[in-house]
Amino acid sequence: MANPVLPSSGVLSPLGLDAVRLSPGFWGDRVALNREVTIAHCQEWEEREGWIGNFRGERPRRGREFSDSEIYKLLEAMAWADHPGLPALAETVAQAQEGDGYINTRWSGSRYTDFEWGHELYCYGHLIQAAVARLRMHGEDRLTQVAVRAADHVCRRFMDGTETCGHPVIEMALVELYRVTGTERYLEMARRFVERRGLPALADIPFGRAYYQDDMPVRQAQVFRGHAVRALYLASGVVDVAVETGDEELLKAVEAQWERTVARRTHLTGGMGSRHIDESFGDDYELPPDRAYNETCASIASIMLAHRLLLATGDVRYADLAERTLYNMLATGVALDGRSFFYANPLQVRVAAVPLEGVNHAAEGGLRSPWFDVSCCPNNIARTLASLPAYMATTAADGLQIHHFTPSEIRGGGVAVRVETGYPWHGAVTVRVLEDGDGRIKLRVPAWASDATLAHGGTVRPVAPGYASVDGPWRAGDELRLELAMSPRWTFPNSKIDALRACAAVERGPLVYCAESVGDEPPLADLAVRVEPPVEHEANGVVELEVEASLGDSDGDGWPYGPSRNGRVDASDARLRLIPYHRWGNRGPATMRVWLPI
Amino acid sequence: MANPVLPSSGVLSPLGLDAVRLSPGFWGDRVALNREVTIAHCQEWEEREGWIGNFRGERPRRGREFSDSEIYKLLEAMAWADHPGLPALAETVAQAQEGDGYINTRWSGSRYTDFEWGHELYCYGHLIQAAVARLRMHGEDRLTQVAVRAADHVCRRFMDGTETCGHPVIEMALVELYRVTGTERYLEMARRFVERRGLPALADIPFGRAYYQDDMPVRQAQVFRGHAVRALYLASGVVDVAVETGDEELLKAVEAQWERTVARRTHLTGGMGSRHIDESFGDDYELPPDRAYNETCASIASIMLAHRLLLATGDVRYADLAERTLYNMLATGVALDGRSFFYANPLQVRVAAVPLEGVNHAAEGGLRSPWFDVSCCPNNIARTLASLPAYMATTAADGLQIHHFTPSEIRGGGVAVRVETGYPWHGAVTVRVLEDGDGRIKLRVPAWASDATLAHGGTVRPVAPGYASVDGPWRAGDELRLELAMSPRWTFPNSKIDALRACAAVERGPLVYCAESVGDEPPLADLAVRVEPPVEHEANGVVELEVEASLGDSDGDGWPYGPSRNGRVDASDARLRLIPYHRWGNRGPATMRVWLPI
Repeated sequence: MANPVLPSSGVLSPLGLDAVRLSPGFWGDRVALNREVTIAHCQEWEEREGWIGNFRGERPRRGREFSDSEIYKLLEAMAWADHPGLPALAETVAQAQEGDGYINTRWSGSRYTDFEWGHELYCYGHLIQAAVARLRMHGEDRLTQVAVRAADHVCRRFMDGTETCGHPVIEMALVELYRVTGTERYLEMARRFVERRGLPALADIPFGRAYYQDDMPVRQAQVFRGHAVRALYLASGVVDVAVETGDEELLKAVEAQWERTVARRTHLTGGMGSRHIDESFGDDYELPPDRAYNETCASIASIMLAHRLLLATGDVRYADLAERTLYNMLATGVALDGRSFFYANPLQVRVAAVPLEGVNHAAEGGLRSPWFDVSCCPNNIARTLASLPAYMATTAADGLQIHHFTPSEIRGGGVAVRVETGYPWHGAVTVRVLEDGDGRIKLRVPAWASDATLAHGGTVRPVAPGYASVDGPWRAGDELRLELAMSPRWTFPNSKIDALRACAAVERGPLVYCAESVGDEPPLADLAVRVEPPVEHEANGVVELEVEASLGDSDGDGWPYGPSRNGRVDASDARLRLIPYHRWGNRGPATMRVWLPI
Repeated sequence: MANPVLPSSGVLSPLGLDAVRLSPGFWGDRVALNREVTIAHCQEWEEREGWIGNFRGERPRRGREFSDSEIYKLLEAMAWADHPGLPALAETVAQAQEGDGYINTRWSGSRYTDFEWGHELYCYGHLIQAAVARLRMHGEDRLTQVAVRAADHVCRRFMDGTETCGHPVIEMALVELYRVTGTERYLEMARRFVERRGLPALADIPFGRAYYQDDMPVRQAQVFRGHAVRALYLASGVVDVAVETGDEELLKAVEAQWERTVARRTHLTGGMGSRHIDESFGDDYELPPDRAYNETCASIASIMLAHRLLLATGDVRYADLAERTLYNMLATGVALDGRSFFYANPLQVRVAAVPLEGVNHAAEGGLRSPWFDVSCCPNNIARTLASLPAYMATTAADGLQIHHFTPSEIRGGGVAVRVETGYPWHGAVTVRVLEDGDGRIKLRVPAWASDATLAHGGTVRPVAPGYASVDGPWRAGDELRLELAMSPRWTFPNSKIDALRACAAVERGPLVYCAESVGDEPPLADLAVRVEPPVEHEANGVVELEVEASLGDSDGDGWPYGPSRNGRVDASDARLRLIPYHRWGNRGPATMRVWLPI
């Protein structure tokens, strides 16, 4: 099956690209844009930057020590998209492989001399993931041969050691390679990489070993910590190992870590990783809107993890977080033209960015950039959107579960259906049965949908968050209609989140909204909103909102601390326009805020 | 005169260590502890870490590329303290000087190949500052010969170039060397270093050229930006150049930058530099209490800059900020035992630090550390405390100005006085005239002192913030008595400071207070205070405060954002003890907060 995650057991089974086809709509349009524009964009930049040339032996070698992995992520995207450019690029990659399977354009000649920062096993991980995609979409070829030889080299070199990589990812890659090939040593190698982490396996560094989750064994950890992408890739691999080895304790450990992380270390958008300096989670309740790092790749890793936990447990809360992250992080990470990207995703930007030409060195700022010195995010978006249909629905013994609503055709669990919806703008979801069938159909009722009904066979009943379930049998033409009330809602933060005190945000359906100010639009620096029902406007297929606000206008010179509680002056009433967070930064340099002072 | 800053003109003239002698008291005790404990502590660590051995040619060379500068800062401290260890250490340093005056243990053999990060001119700057201290305290010796040869080398090598250093400090050092030697090329070299910065002179880096203030000429800048220590050292050098060259425009530029920085980029404690990742100021109003970096060295640089601006302009606001920074940053940076130090100085710590053995690699955390990989802060504290008396008082044509009140004897401006006070705990300041004299005596009335009186010659009159002035003539035994009402006061932030919304802090006199929780004391994560007058307690010479609070007790599991405005549960009333911020972290691992939710 054409699927990035294919566990041999679990409460739910995934449906792959062969079973879920997206039609034009919110996600279908983005997946098509990714295939037609973003993949080529990434390949052009990787040529221009010399990262592909490294595999051809061009000198001097260019790019960071882990740049090989960007080509592998792109190859994975190409594999899922059946992109015609894949064979030639794979051939280029193959040139760099050495006789024993080793492949790395940076460390050839000084192999395995820096496990902390070398990223060699990390690069293999992405190579293997690309090969898994290729095997499932196409079958064996040059790319998959290279990756299998590399995986065999890794097993020979590392099976009996105590070493691991400063950047996890190979764990989940090896489990998937085991799943697709049946070769058990790949699973065993992944298991050992998981178990030796935290003994510790790596040297101490100024960031501390928590940076790469080597501060304690994964079974003992209470929460995700350190570098967010590393932590979430590792957790994904741990779930994969736990599922394949039947290790319930290990699975429960990750579930508990996820639960605490979601309760204390996750932004409203689903973004994870508050700190810039080490791209780490930070402490519990350290959730600053302005300095939230929220790397696009961490959100992708969070979606990967939530999907694995959903498959393993069937618990709807994982699909709920995935939805939040899909609509507010993944959809935000790439511009509407598919050619520029956010690396960091703060919830407040005070100073409009200065437009940059070319590469964004700092991977920061309020304007999407076509490329970065470290360009994981564009390639990660490309591979995720290319495989996105596989995240939409699952099956179980009793039928089909639809977790995410977007225009699509889905076949699995004994039924074939077409989903018709204007989601996330509109709450009506029609599921039309295409063929006679038997399976039970479950539709996820999102946690935010406190007012929902399901119409079927002439009756309408209220349905609560969780899964609304209807049993078959089905005749072609049968119809289910889920109605999720889509009124805008005010959302308030837990009082322990100091950075959000006395603020509120507006959400509507799965979307987080924000205020944006471009050019000479009213500034957002000193505003206060009234918590009254927002007014909706629809324009060009996008639902925008308006709330009542008062906009301050003081320059605030002089010492900014004093005996007066009321610092705001010259405030004037205004209507404040709110747009979906994922659409911000598409009109030029802007300031922005999600959390609005009350 | 024994003075770290000795301008040839200015509204006020400094009084040096020969004119201001501190007695036992708040600062006198700290200066004594520094001389007796901290200086030796620094020297021991610099031996242990091999940074002194580098000058003896020991291999491999140890420490960071700028470690030479730590020895120079220590030599400066020794010079001001007349420390007997100076000649031997200076002799060790001298061994590393090359025939043409070049001296650097890291870059010898690859001179001037990395102006962005090499720190060669930065190291010279600190060497020269040490020599200036030695020349003023003692006269010419081996250390001063080494520094003069290095300065001459710098002038030969850089006078006609376009190059400068990624880390400013040499600018102010060269001006002081000009002031002490009269050699004009040192001033001209400093002037050129100032003027060529921002043309630009340095390469672009991922942090951007603003990191080292090379994004625009200093005359065009509106605010301090980039790396805080770099920005404030540069500004100090710019003031020195402006004063010596009579460049009013240049001085006004720095004054305007300082004013905007104080209004928008300064924490309540006087701390500057909000961001960890590049140790930079961050944007206007980006003032997070928890992630405030507030490097100890930046506060020292801020004191140096404020002192220079005070001398140049006589404007009391510079002394007010210096006072805030002295009592809440400098006094916080070193433990009560003089042997451990803060590098970062946040205003909130959520998680009590785990005690470290030895060096603190990350220079973070809520426990002071005996040493750091980059150990600028301990040495900077040592040199600042060793020269601290020079910051207390000034003279002008008409007499003496006392800016900071601590037990001391001061001679200058035509008068000789003894200052007797329990400041900052008590607001009574007695100035006793020791000898007959003529000069006008001015006492600074701090900006916070809205209720102050001055008693003299049998009369008592109210005095407003600014300077309270009394004319002579004086007879030995005459007495002035300034009474500053020391009641605790609630302070509120400007509404543009998002991170402090709906919070208040308590100050008393020049001191910022904080809540601290050690061990099993009530946690501070979820508290709310009532804005009622705090109650004072005095214990062991320290004034502590108590306010009424309610302490929350929820664990806050589950998604932390929801439809309810009131997230706090299980709150119970309590008395919350507040201690001076500078005393926090002296009882073991602790959580802490300055800004208290209302």
